Amino acid sequence: MLYVVILCGLLSIVYGVWAIQSVMAADAGNQRMQEIAGAIQEGAQAYLTRQYTTIAIVGVVVFFIAWWLLSITAAIGFLIGAVLSGSAGFIGMLVSVRANVRTAQAASRSLGAGLAIAFKSGAITGLLVAGLALLGVAVYFWVLTGPMGLDGTDREVIDALVALGFGASLISIFARLGGGIFTKGADVGGDLVGKVEAGIPEDDPRNPATIADNVGDNVGDCAGMAADLFETYAVTVVATMVLASIFFTGAVAAQMMMLPLVIGGACVITSIAGTFFVKLGASNSIMGALYKGFIATAVLSAVALALIVAFWIGFDTEFTAGPKTFTGTDMFLCGLSGLVITGLIIWVTEYYTGTEYRPVRSIAQASVTGHGTNVIQGLAVSLEATALPALIIIAGIIVTFQLAGLFGIAIAVTTMLALAGMVVALDAFGPVTDNAGGIAEMADLPAEVRATTDALDAVGNTTKAVTKGYAIGSAGLGALVLFAAYTEDLRHFAATAAPGSIFEGIDVNSLFSLSSPYVVAGLLFGGLLPYLFGGISMTAVGRAAGAVVEEVRRQFKEKPGIMQGTEKPDYGRAVDMLTKAAIREMIVPSLLPVLSPLVVFGVIYMVATPSDAFAALGAMLLGVIVTGLFVAISMTAGGGAWDNAKKSFEDGFTDKDGVVHQKGSEAHKASVTGDTVGDPYKDTAGPAVNPMIKITNIVALLLLAVLSH
Amino acid sequence: MLYVVILCGLLSIVYGVWAIQSVMAADAGNQRMQEIAGAIQEGAQAYLTRQYTTIAIVGVVVFFIAWWLLSITAAIGFLIGAVLSGSAGFIGMLVSVRANVRTAQAASRSLGAGLAIAFKSGAITGLLVAGLALLGVAVYFWVLTGPMGLDGTDREVIDALVALGFGASLISIFARLGGGIFTKGADVGGDLVGKVEAGIPEDDPRNPATIADNVGDNVGDCAGMAADLFETYAVTVVATMVLASIFFTGAVAAQMMMLPLVIGGACVITSIAGTFFVKLGASNSIMGALYKGFIATAVLSAVALALIVAFWIGFDTEFTAGPKTFTGTDMFLCGLSGLVITGLIIWVTEYYTGTEYRPVRSIAQASVTGHGTNVIQGLAVSLEATALPALIIIAGIIVTFQLAGLFGIAIAVTTMLALAGMVVALDAFGPVTDNAGGIAEMADLPAEVRATTDALDAVGNTTKAVTKGYAIGSAGLGALVLFAAYTEDLRHFAATAAPGSIFEGIDVNSLFSLSSPYVVAGLLFGGLLPYLFGGISMTAVGRAAGAVVEEVRRQFKEKPGIMQGTEKPDYGRAVDMLTKAAIREMIVPSLLPVLSPLVVFGVIYMVATPSDAFAALGAMLLGVIVTGLFVAISMTAGGGAWDNAKKSFEDGFTDKDGVVHQKGSEAHKASVTGDTVGDPYKDTAGPAVNPMIKITNIVALLLLAVLSH
Repeated sequence: MLYVVILCGLLSIVYGVWAIQSVMAADAGNQRMQEIAGAIQEGAQAYLTRQYTTIAIVGVVVFFIAWWLLSITAAIGFLIGAVLSGSAGFIGMLVSVRANVRTAQAASRSLGAGLAIAFKSGAITGLLVAGLALLGVAVYFWVLTGPMGLDGTDREVIDALVALGFGASLISIFARLGGGIFTKGADVGGDLVGKVEAGIPEDDPRNPATIADNVGDNVGDCAGMAADLFETYAVTVVATMVLASIFFTGAVAAQMMMLPLVIGGACVITSIAGTFFVKLGASNSIMGALYKGFIATAVLSAVALALIVAFWIGFDTEFTAGPKTFTGTDMFLCGLSGLVITGLIIWVTEYYTGTEYRPVRSIAQASVTGHGTNVIQGLAVSLEATALPALIIIAGIIVTFQLAGLFGIAIAVTTMLALAGMVVALDAFGPVTDNAGGIAEMADLPAEVRATTDALDAVGNTTKAVTKGYAIGSAGLGALVLFAAYTEDLRHFAATAAPGSIFEGIDVNSLFSLSSPYVVAGLLFGGLLPYLFGGISMTAVGRAAGAVVEEVRRQFKEKPGIMQGTEKPDYGRAVDMLTKAAIREMIVPSLLPVLSPLVVFGVIYMVATPSDAFAALGAMLLGVIVTGLFVAISMTAGGGAWDNAKKSFEDGFTDKDGVVHQKGSEAHKASVTGDTVGDPYKDTAGPAVNPMIKITNIVALLLLAVLSH
Repeated sequence: MLYVVILCGLLSIVYGVWAIQSVMAADAGNQRMQEIAGAIQEGAQAYLTRQYTTIAIVGVVVFFIAWWLLSITAAIGFLIGAVLSGSAGFIGMLVSVRANVRTAQAASRSLGAGLAIAFKSGAITGLLVAGLALLGVAVYFWVLTGPMGLDGTDREVIDALVALGFGASLISIFARLGGGIFTKGADVGGDLVGKVEAGIPEDDPRNPATIADNVGDNVGDCAGMAADLFETYAVTVVATMVLASIFFTGAVAAQMMMLPLVIGGACVITSIAGTFFVKLGASNSIMGALYKGFIATAVLSAVALALIVAFWIGFDTEFTAGPKTFTGTDMFLCGLSGLVITGLIIWVTEYYTGTEYRPVRSIAQASVTGHGTNVIQGLAVSLEATALPALIIIAGIIVTFQLAGLFGIAIAVTTMLALAGMVVALDAFGPVTDNAGGIAEMADLPAEVRATTDALDAVGNTTKAVTKGYAIGSAGLGALVLFAAYTEDLRHFAATAAPGSIFEGIDVNSLFSLSSPYVVAGLLFGGLLPYLFGGISMTAVGRAAGAVVEEVRRQFKEKPGIMQGTEKPDYGRAVDMLTKAAIREMIVPSLLPVLSPLVVFGVIYMVATPSDAFAALGAMLLGVIVTGLFVAISMTAGGGAWDNAKKSFEDGFTDKDGVVHQKGSEAHKASVTGDTVGDPYKDTAGPAVNPMIKITNIVALLLLAVLSH
């Protein structure tokens, strides 16, 4: 079965190679377009190279620490996770910066042609994320249990897999945060000085920050998101395997440890199949075309899940995990719940960020009375938007737990994440179309081309918001699985503790009682992390944007010919400066979630007992999830809503008194303020909370492993 | 001892009566000033009468429910809490709307004279809050245990006290929210249409919303805050008494149940003494004068605490509460910790909201690059500002728990709240000076008078922010005591459960384990409440402000003479409209925290076991505290920082490049946007989270009482 899984993983690579060739074969447009695309390629490559070089330094240190504290297999696992996570993002970005110009060119032929290239480029990133994550875990698991002859439930295997997840997490927090600071620094800074001060439109070639803005789309939304979902995927699969290794024994343990891999493998195939359903229908609805692909994947995945249960597990087979006994049918229903949760979260996110529904319309309406009311209403929507997703997640937890206990929750999340290939495809489609629009503008292509790319871009905004909702929902649930792995791991170590060991006498059943002040302190400490992290990253964007403003002002002043179009701005300097700023700003906040678990454990260990320290650490993990979920959802949904409220004005917004507010009106300007505020909210601070939630959890798991050595 | 406590409570009433006479004896200014003040008085009185009438309807229903489900003593307890909480706010408001004009008049004599009247007015509200809360609990406790002959630890006494807390809570959430919507609807709406559209300054008599704005200060910041702190005070004292009744037995129980009352009584005296230290020094520093009063109260309270421990408890006496044994010295140190926590939170809040420190300066600096960056930086500060207060609270929990267990935490919070008299005095000083400035402006008093009231008002802004930090910190810690009361109550009922009872077989030690999915679901559900509540109340303010904008526009259009000063605007209509809006908007969100505990318990009870339902409910209480603390601190600190960033421009703000931005500059306009956004953040949504945290907790306690019947 493991070979089948690996084959499925390889299939995603084959699809990737085929799709890359197919994208590269498309017409890359005229000289001017290629020149612009070349500048974007160069900038993106330069940034990512520098980013990954910096991360590599941290990575090498961690590699040796893992070797020293754990084992060489753990250190290699860390390396695999880190390298593959980075690769998924890097390759995705390389394709994305080549697909953008081809999408612009294809858009001059037809909407369908533009969509085809942009989506194919997104699908490459998506399937590489899912495929590489699956391959990484599956191949390393095979190496450990096959050639190396270890048992699947051996602690060395578990440690190595957890370390693999940690590698992915570490890369993803840096990539998410660095990319997020770069992209929004460029976007906010460029808009402030371009649109507001100089009065030139977005993507105007006279703006020295315009290439940086396009670079940012690729390194943030494409490479950053890819690393993020790679991590969520890998970490969740690993956590489910850890749970399986603890809950089951013998042949059942081997089968159950394989289950997340098998589901992942099957869903790679259904995702590939789904990509072929993305075709413009008669209605010319782009969103409709994308949804067709998503729904096809979801339905096929449900069928695949049924087949897996029917032929490999058996609908009636009974399993016992901890205190709970359940059948194959129960597990199938858990998987199905994962699909339903995904669908519901996408639906709710679209409601909160779509232009035609109450929330976005209320923000547009509030813009009529000014900047202040626009922001107030946007914040109100962002706060409110957390309620339904939270209720969906709560319902998911209760339903799947009642079906099959903690392992049921894990199966639901695994299935949810198995769709990652398709969902990332929808997301990575966004920066390609965004860039295509920029290139069309800068290369002075006819207005119709820009109209076509704008239509694609508008959909890209929605899919980006939807993907973030999915990423956070799955991260929240995935983190609960990680937390369960932490508690069950602790229970395992406590049960097998040698006399004098730190784990001796720990009673996991009463350990995490909310009546313990250490648990409450841990919850509060965990709760503050997303807030502090959000605050620091918002400040970082503000600072980076401020630096861009100054650089652009300097160029305008030193080269007065830029505005007349007689002199060329120095695009490279803005890119370079942002690169330095983003790399510098990403280090400290990224280390916050890595070091916090160690600090909490250490401090409580010193002032109280080891039991209290484990309790506080566990509670901290849950505290991060509780506030992190709300912070992340409110930021990404609120940001998306502000963005689309601004878009409402582009074709004229009719307010409740029937007055039409055009682009350029005072109401539109107020909506631009909201959009600017939403930018770092939705593209930097919000999404970066995802990996931070999981990194705290996985560091805690590693800490247990280290302490048990 | 109880008689001494009651005497102390009565002393606060005596102080109040004396101070009211002293304020009323001051010169009320000229005809025009009295006319304006009369309009404010009328509006505030009309609003509060309507608000309390509406609440009374809910109150009567709850009264009978409490009678039916619990007992007549509980119903009467509810009534006492509700009536006294309402009275504290109402009387405070009545004094405040009379002190404003007298402060304006006194300010024309000297700064010191203005400060004296404004502070005395604030002190009346403050001491009535502390005194009435103390009297309410102490007298009812006396009635129950004296004439009615019940034992202090009798469940009927406990239920009656908890119901008293619930009465206070219910009033306070309505008062906070209704007052908050009124005041910020008027403020935001009036500013938008006045400052932005018509280009007239704040408090200009031509603006039809200007009286409503002044009314709002009184019903929101004065009456709302008074009800809020009355509630926190009463509820915390009650929760500490409940804990004492569970932890101790016999004579020690009686002594320990009295302890919070004794501390409260002593601190009423130290607060009264502290008010006499508020005097302008040679440096003319208003903040310095207020701090002198606060520090005097804190130091005297520490001394009083030492005396209480020395002569009534004994420093060396040993006590055992649950698994913990501690001495009188430990309890003294816990009380001292409460004072230290108060001091630290005030210090941190001042750092985050004071004009001279980094956070506010960074927002002012960000205003230079526009509305968007101002809001981004403000949000960044608001997120970051949660970290230090959370760490202080965490440290407080750990230190006091290590000293004297859960009861130690309760003693710390009780002592913290015993300072409420002084702290509310600082807060209630704010609306008086704000109003005084408005009256000076509208009555065309000389510019120097306005300068004096502005100086007082600027300090009022800081003290308001500081008080909110204190209120939230104490509410968070107080809620933990309530949560402890919930768990210990549950343990008590489980231990004494009759066969077949719902409490049978509940194991509290393992009940609240974070490994239970019902606990996680409860945490998440609790976590969403402050978000949803915040979203709804922000929307409500936006809607109320929009209505004000339309009303003012209508008046400007129908009476063109208003702007020329030949026609008088219809102030009453704006007040009337806001009254209706605020009352309408406050109902639904206020019921959210009241009904949520019942819904969570009911739903989980139906799908799982009673144990799971109690676990989910308990976790929900903690979830509300965890996110509520961060939501509330970030909103109030962020709002205060935005407000003062705007104030930085009033005397010209020098940015980092040395450019000076004056009032009226683009940067100043951007800072006004931030201030507008911060208004509902800091004065509506943020503070209203306080009572909502506690109301969920106290409803849960009542639910236990009802289920045990």
